[in-house]
Amino acid sequence: MPVEMQLSRIIISEIHDQQIIYLSEVDGHRQFPIVIGIFEATSIERRIKGLKAPRPLTHDLIVGTIRQLGAEPDSVVVSDLRDGTYFAELRVQKDGELVGIDARPSDAIAVAVSCEPPLPIFVAEQVLDEAVSDSL
Amino acid sequence: MPVEMQLSRIIISEIHDQQIIYLSEVDGHRQFPIVIGIFEATSIERRIKGLKAPRPLTHDLIVGTIRQLGAEPDSVVVSDLRDGTYFAELRVQKDGELVGIDARPSDAIAVAVSCEPPLPIFVAEQVLDEAVSDSL
Repeated sequence: MPVEMQLSRIIISEIHDQQIIYLSEVDGHRQFPIVIGIFEATSIERRIKGLKAPRPLTHDLIVGTIRQLGAEPDSVVVSDLRDGTYFAELRVQKDGELVGIDARPSDAIAVAVSCEPPLPIFVAEQVLDEAVSDSL
Repeated sequence: MPVEMQLSRIIISEIHDQQIIYLSEVDGHRQFPIVIGIFEATSIERRIKGLKAPRPLTHDLIVGTIRQLGAEPDSVVVSDLRDGTYFAELRVQKDGELVGIDARPSDAIAVAVSCEPPLPIFVAEQVLDEAVSDSL
């Protein structure tokens, strides 16, 4: 069963290329970091801070694309961890079915926080186990 | 009638926040610059240079989203210029119809060059007239 998580921290460093977000269990105490790029980190941060842009930014365009094609963003699942790389799925509802789109967690989470209300974020149980033990 | 254009130059400056791309007429000599952000500029440049990424980057995710929802990217149209801001549409084919998705030109062009072959880029004639005279 995937475990519902929330974005609990973003650490942005202008000196480094790689930024860090933390996902924390909604009904528990487990958490782990994911290293992401500066663009995705600032994109997530803008949404968390509620900053509005006059024109659709890149992750807004993803939401716009989904809606214009008759679908609705549903959720994000961090589904796998292979060789230190997290894999995610952006899930959208279309004609009563759930369609999974292969994405990096950073983009999927940036899409999640671009939606109002934000999409729920889940992490597969075995990924959470491994991620938490790796980060201890 | 929209005029077919091609991406003829990208000027990336790490000192400035704003980068410049040039669109040039395919069957003519008119050209004009569009100021875009550093993320979109580097995303476009990566594709022009043929750099591959192991995981889908943000504009690849847009292409993946379109395809997973049963549509196919078609073209980009820079459709309007208002108060110095260019407006574009990312056009996709779905069930034999053309669906236009509101986008910034930078994102639309980044999607165009993420496709293989790249999507054609058009500029509305009145936008081209105004853009060319503004840039002289």
